[in-house]
Amino acid sequence: MSLYRKALLGDTEKKILEFTSSIDIDRHFVEEAVDVMRAHVEHLISINAIPEEAGRKVLVALESVSKEDLLSRKAEDIFEAMEEYLKERVGEDFGWISIGRSRNDHVAAVLRLLTRKYITRIIEEILNLRATLLHAASENLYTLFPSFTHMQPAQISTAAHYLTYIEEELSFYTRLLLDVLELVNRSPLGAAAVTSTLVDIDREELASSLHFSGVVKNSLLATGSRDFIHIVSSILTSLSVFLSRVAEDMIFFSFSSLIDAPREHMATSSLMPHKKNLVTMELVRAWGGKAIGLLTSILAVEKGIPSGYNLDLQEMNSSFIPLLVRTADTISIFEDFISKVRFRQVKFTGTLILTDIAELLSLELKIPYREVYVRIARGMSKMNDPSLDEILSFLKEEFNLDEKVIRAISNPIKLLKRKSDGSPNPDAMRKYIEGAKNKINEDLGLLKRATSGI
Amino acid sequence: MSLYRKALLGDTEKKILEFTSSIDIDRHFVEEAVDVMRAHVEHLISINAIPEEAGRKVLVALESVSKEDLLSRKAEDIFEAMEEYLKERVGEDFGWISIGRSRNDHVAAVLRLLTRKYITRIIEEILNLRATLLHAASENLYTLFPSFTHMQPAQISTAAHYLTYIEEELSFYTRLLLDVLELVNRSPLGAAAVTSTLVDIDREELASSLHFSGVVKNSLLATGSRDFIHIVSSILTSLSVFLSRVAEDMIFFSFSSLIDAPREHMATSSLMPHKKNLVTMELVRAWGGKAIGLLTSILAVEKGIPSGYNLDLQEMNSSFIPLLVRTADTISIFEDFISKVRFRQVKFTGTLILTDIAELLSLELKIPYREVYVRIARGMSKMNDPSLDEILSFLKEEFNLDEKVIRAISNPIKLLKRKSDGSPNPDAMRKYIEGAKNKINEDLGLLKRATSGI
Amino acid sequence: MSLYRKALLGDTEKKILEFTSSIDIDRHFVEEAVDVMRAHVEHLISINAIPEEAGRKVLVALESVSKEDLLSRKAEDIFEAMEEYLKERVGEDFGWISIGRSRNDHVAAVLRLLTRKYITRIIEEILNLRATLLHAASENLYTLFPSFTHMQPAQISTAAHYLTYIEEELSFYTRLLLDVLELVNRSPLGAAAVTSTLVDIDREELASSLHFSGVVKNSLLATGSRDFIHIVSSILTSLSVFLSRVAEDMIFFSFSSLIDAPREHMATSSLMPHKKNLVTMELVRAWGGKAIGLLTSILAVEKGIPSGYNLDLQEMNSSFIPLLVRTADTISIFEDFISKVRFRQVKFTGTLILTDIAELLSLELKIPYREVYVRIARGMSKMNDPSLDEILSFLKEEFNLDEKVIRAISNPIKLLKRKSDGSPNPDAMRKYIEGAKNKINEDLGLLKRATSGI
Amino acid sequence: MSLYRKALLGDTEKKILEFTSSIDIDRHFVEEAVDVMRAHVEHLISINAIPEEAGRKVLVALESVSKEDLLSRKAEDIFEAMEEYLKERVGEDFGWISIGRSRNDHVAAVLRLLTRKYITRIIEEILNLRATLLHAASENLYTLFPSFTHMQPAQISTAAHYLTYIEEELSFYTRLLLDVLELVNRSPLGAAAVTSTLVDIDREELASSLHFSGVVKNSLLATGSRDFIHIVSSILTSLSVFLSRVAEDMIFFSFSSLIDAPREHMATSSLMPHKKNLVTMELVRAWGGKAIGLLTSILAVEKGIPSGYNLDLQEMNSSFIPLLVRTADTISIFEDFISKVRFRQVKFTGTLILTDIAELLSLELKIPYREVYVRIARGMSKMNDPSLDEILSFLKEEFNLDEKVIRAISNPIKLLKRKSDGSPNPDAMRKYIEGAKNKINEDLGLLKRATSGI
Repeated sequence: MSLYRKALLGDTEKKILEFTSSIDIDRHFVEEAVDVMRAHVEHLISINAIPEEAGRKVLVALESVSKEDLLSRKAEDIFEAMEEYLKERVGEDFGWISIGRSRNDHVAAVLRLLTRKYITRIIEEILNLRATLLHAASENLYTLFPSFTHMQPAQISTAAHYLTYIEEELSFYTRLLLDVLELVNRSPLGAAAVTSTLVDIDREELASSLHFSGVVKNSLLATGSRDFIHIVSSILTSLSVFLSRVAEDMIFFSFSSLIDAPREHMATSSLMPHKKNLVTMELVRAWGGKAIGLLTSILAVEKGIPSGYNLDLQEMNSSFIPLLVRTADTISIFEDFISKVRFRQVKFTGTLILTDIAELLSLELKIPYREVYVRIARGMSKMNDPSLDEILSFLKEEFNLDEKVIRAISNPIKLLKRKSDGSPNPDAMRKYIEGAKNKINEDLGLLKRATSGI
Repeated sequence: MSLYRKALLGDTEKKILEFTSSIDIDRHFVEEAVDVMRAHVEHLISINAIPEEAGRKVLVALESVSKEDLLSRKAEDIFEAMEEYLKERVGEDFGWISIGRSRNDHVAAVLRLLTRKYITRIIEEILNLRATLLHAASENLYTLFPSFTHMQPAQISTAAHYLTYIEEELSFYTRLLLDVLELVNRSPLGAAAVTSTLVDIDREELASSLHFSGVVKNSLLATGSRDFIHIVSSILTSLSVFLSRVAEDMIFFSFSSLIDAPREHMATSSLMPHKKNLVTMELVRAWGGKAIGLLTSILAVEKGIPSGYNLDLQEMNSSFIPLLVRTADTISIFEDFISKVRFRQVKFTGTLILTDIAELLSLELKIPYREVYVRIARGMSKMNDPSLDEILSFLKEEFNLDEKVIRAISNPIKLLKRKSDGSPNPDAMRKYIEGAKNKINEDLGLLKRATSGI
Repeated sequence: MSLYRKALLGDTEKKILEFTSSIDIDRHFVEEAVDVMRAHVEHLISINAIPEEAGRKVLVALESVSKEDLLSRKAEDIFEAMEEYLKERVGEDFGWISIGRSRNDHVAAVLRLLTRKYITRIIEEILNLRATLLHAASENLYTLFPSFTHMQPAQISTAAHYLTYIEEELSFYTRLLLDVLELVNRSPLGAAAVTSTLVDIDREELASSLHFSGVVKNSLLATGSRDFIHIVSSILTSLSVFLSRVAEDMIFFSFSSLIDAPREHMATSSLMPHKKNLVTMELVRAWGGKAIGLLTSILAVEKGIPSGYNLDLQEMNSSFIPLLVRTADTISIFEDFISKVRFRQVKFTGTLILTDIAELLSLELKIPYREVYVRIARGMSKMNDPSLDEILSFLKEEFNLDEKVIRAISNPIKLLKRKSDGSPNPDAMRKYIEGAKNKINEDLGLLKRATSGI
Repeated sequence: MSLYRKALLGDTEKKILEFTSSIDIDRHFVEEAVDVMRAHVEHLISINAIPEEAGRKVLVALESVSKEDLLSRKAEDIFEAMEEYLKERVGEDFGWISIGRSRNDHVAAVLRLLTRKYITRIIEEILNLRATLLHAASENLYTLFPSFTHMQPAQISTAAHYLTYIEEELSFYTRLLLDVLELVNRSPLGAAAVTSTLVDIDREELASSLHFSGVVKNSLLATGSRDFIHIVSSILTSLSVFLSRVAEDMIFFSFSSLIDAPREHMATSSLMPHKKNLVTMELVRAWGGKAIGLLTSILAVEKGIPSGYNLDLQEMNSSFIPLLVRTADTISIFEDFISKVRFRQVKFTGTLILTDIAELLSLELKIPYREVYVRIARGMSKMNDPSLDEILSFLKEEFNLDEKVIRAISNPIKLLKRKSDGSPNPDAMRKYIEGAKNKINEDLGLLKRATSGI
């Protein structure tokens, strides 16, 4: 074993090797590691930096490498494991491939490939979820639903309005991830350990052989920076925190009988025979919290370490990879939930339309809004959870309204027919949904362009 | 006082008001709050939603409002303070302005304006720093400087290579911030409390009166989401963590006599008469850590709260605003440091060129690199901190080299003349600097376009 | 100005001084800083290290120092400001006091005094809150109240059980804080900059003059460690997260009409005239999140910096002090809330007693519990939100029960009469409350002992 | 399978089961889960709550349960897996055991047992490390070593002083962990789902059968709180951050040739044949950052969720368990490092004794310290990295000293002979080491008492 250290340092101890080896987490990017090595060797051959025959032998050996073999070796990391394997298969000729590269630029490349793969998957999951949300919205344009602020019923709205709220936020994340994909998809290869190499590597060509869209130029930056991981992690965490809020809504809506949650998403109690717990949504909520910590780990590991590669960077991977994987799964589970949940028409509560009526009265009766507000608030302070009828009769008296007006102003669907864009007005909603569908297609196009050839 | 609560709830207690009031942090956006109110009132007048005369009186009063007056009021927040002030100045007509708006959409607008202002300043500071870095780099193209990995001297490089490493990373952040500026610069106005309003507000027009470039459509999203704050905070935190690494470098370089740090950036000890502590860089390093916590606060406050406005959101501001302000100041201090620091030519250390020589030998002697590596490493294992001469005589013997070759391969400047892009090769550096200057101009153009009219 | 730096480094720039000065946050411990200086000077006099007359002059000047004067000086920190002030008042004799001390041991002492003061206040607030909780519990022994798991009604309980749940958790925190108080209350004085001093300071005696209960021995530890701040911050954060859960309960109970929240703790909307938002509890909930970030800041600032004093440590104070102050205020506000909130008897829901009945049936009918569970669950799967009567008639049929049994098992108060300690059984509750009152007195005694003489 | 959910909810989907199942992380506490179940069943038998024969059959089956069997089942968690297994082995009689318990109290018990086990191990590791540090200190009482502040040489000290600095901090953590062990080691059993049970469980007796030292009384607290996890995680994180600083020291000392780091703790580069990277210390440094994030995850997951068990709590385990395991391993690796590292005598630097000389001069010549300081600082401002001789001749002239005095004051070992406790004075060190050894024995005694019977 100990391919690298023996000549200079001799052997180490099993306990220390176990403490320092990253093999356990490297299992997530074996395929990428092999791809990068293959691209490197092919490039060395193409620029005549190494004997073609030696290079070909390595390439053949790489064809048939098995993940289990690599992971079972007691190596420092997947790259040492790969060299060991090649040494066994190819003999001393394996040693040609170690020129013009180091683990520093290779691991950076592998992490960028992995990130690219997951961002692509996550964008696809988001686009799918957005489509599902729009579909559900289009079926709930007239499903009266309370809007909440401060976990208290606020104003009358529709389930469609709630659903498109989620969709619009996700459209913002889609665009962000597409922007970031471009920054991630750049090759650090050729940077070698830190100052690049005397081998005449054509970094642009090597990059494009792995479908990178460009190159991280400065070799110290290429090998020593993980800021692309910070940024991707940040966006995924922010997205996860957003979903934690929506999950809290669902748990709360379920308690309040505002939705029928799909049974597949519930679990039972081991003791209480009646309990139906909305466990997927609890886990989506919890994931928001867990993601915050993973992001914190990533940032805190890097805080204050010197520039250039330090092994500290290795410790970020065990936080970053779960962030990629679980965020993707969370979106997928949430999409499944949305595709199955049923929104119930709200049992009508009088106060939900009070604000709209207040605005109408101010406009119609030409009374400053604050005065209308105060008079109504004063009335409300004397009632306890009033019914619609009680509210209407109070308003009738307070503002001296006739019956017809009262009737006119108390129809929630009419109240929803506001002009304002982005409101629950079913016409506005319909228009929004149309536009949003187009945007999904547009985003899909951008994704395809960004990942073409991969 | 208690403009809002009296009618419905009566008075509260001083202790509770102090606990809940945000006046202290609101001082950072008084100007923006007044601007938003002015735009709202002007819009109400322009669409004939309120009597013009009443609106004009409010606008006149807003002209002469004083920050101190507003902040001295025992109000829940700056918006209540403003209404109180207007009530005093304008009388009951002030009440017209409360229609078609709520604190929910107004505070969201104010926060977006504030964020826009600071992102703009931060981009400007970054552009300035990038220019300073390029200038310093162009003066240090031939300043031999060690590159480090693992806080150990790794390979020979130049100070210019180190400086452009920082610059290239910052160019990545500039682009990110420009992307995000576009997402931030959207108006939530007209969303009112949560479902928008029955007033016929033209949200696009209102938005453009404050130079927003678009509208957050869904009114629940517009009022209840702070994800733009997450994203901006994340990027600034990531940038701050990057700077914490560079600051650690500087402290370490200063200890190692690799730089002459400017005296203005040092402080003394109260007890030890010889101490020169590089305190600005310590604070830049610490800021990376502090920023991580502020970001965590922002995310953790929001995690799991229900959708729609909750007062929890108010508690993010006291984390977000310092993040904006201190990041801007940190970049500015760092720029000052770079403009004054002097990089020293490294006193030559033999091992710094060993890797390059090893690559050369592999290429020239046609020996697989790993073999060259192992033979050199074995030699090194027997020497203790060898001088260049000791290294060269070892190599001569080990690889049977003649004197001329030895001389040729041991010239560091020649070793730097690698082809590879992004290497410390002074020619490559010169080319990079030229390109980077153009990119700064390009970014400046994008910033001007994004903020035109403001 | 620039008392320290002039001789060695000359002046600095205003911008850099503003960036590095801690005067703004130091305002929180001016009194402690003066106390520490006074104790230092008195000790120097008592051991004849400095001329008595010079020392006395300084002590007189310290008597009349004003906080505003110190804070208005453009000093690096409160200690430099104090020296400047003393120089003005006392003349060159002020210079005697600078021996045998440095800012490093003095700021550590000041922070420990400040922490001691706040822990004491926080323990007092907790003890007060515990007493209020027990009082409320004793008035709600028979107030039937649902217990929740997964935000779903789980089993029948009482409000007293809920209230003592909070109290018991707080008793755990009280003990922890008392343990930690002992670790905090140790003096770093005499450690000077880092290796202590050649002045014959009697560290134990100096410590006891400030009522420290002991000494941090190693002078590098005394000056360079802030782990006492980590630990205190951690406990307060954990406590704050606990309170965030209770606050969420209250908001949720308020929505569910399970409590009547005090009006003083609510706020209104600026637009919606009926809204009563439980804002204090929202802020208590948010505080849990904010505290997490402050703790993260504290830890991340310190992560990876070298041992010994570094200015990074200064940056922890602006996270730590708000953590002390706001946690104290949050407990106080929460106590006010508990003292005024009214718990409502739950409107009876059948499923709340189902688990207890299932256990009874298993015990009485000698059927394995899992079988009982499955038979009931199967029944429940066919009902939708069943009433108590529906449930009882299902059970009667399923288990072939006679009317008398059914009646007997469906009385919630009887079901509560379980033997198990810590259950909602009013007798068990009464016993718990008695014991808990004694523990409060015991804890009060411990606090008094720990802070005697202060 | 779906032992619980079938009757009430029917089956779920594989994808959802995978998303919600905790089996992967539960592998860390299979043994504890079996122990808790065994204790539960034995208790049910002993109080005649279930038929003895049925109970015995279960106990027999539990004897031979295999971890792999349980983990291979597609169960929601280890508890469901265990019930499934028992059902297969025992038949319907397995169903008796499900009374008087739920997963809520059982998982809480399991986590407390696991925590108890790891705290015990961690305390043992710390005690071992402390002994190693004291041993190294006793061998380095006279090894002159610089003390650093601000990563700059500050004053002369000894390696022993540095080593005991670490030891004293660890003694503080030992005591904290012993305090907390007592709070962790309490049984939640008998609390069942949330309101305890109608079965006449004797909670104290059940607790003592698992060697818990007491009971968490309130059943809502017992099942729904994880604050013991917060506190343990906080202490371990704070300890890890402390070690990250010491690790940074070691990397920095290694670069500065102040220590000879053991070769086993170094690793090589894949490209650079001379590189010896102190990788264990880099990972110890990184662990501080990673731990911060794990703690943040734990706290953020719990922030704002309602009281009582929520599945969110399950998500803390995958953060908590690595925190326990890796902290223990980190201490162990660090102990190995300390046992092998060699501290080098510092090559003498003049400024290291300047502060001590300044104090001496002030005391001897009766000049106010600040004046001495300023005169020396002024001198220093004119020299650049002065040698000891240059410094001494400056002092001689500046303070008009005769040769004898100069000689007397410039002996570093004499300067170390300060009276002050906690200083590097070898006599003080010797005394400290003696006392510290006694404290280790005392702490070992406390640990044995706290864990007796386990």
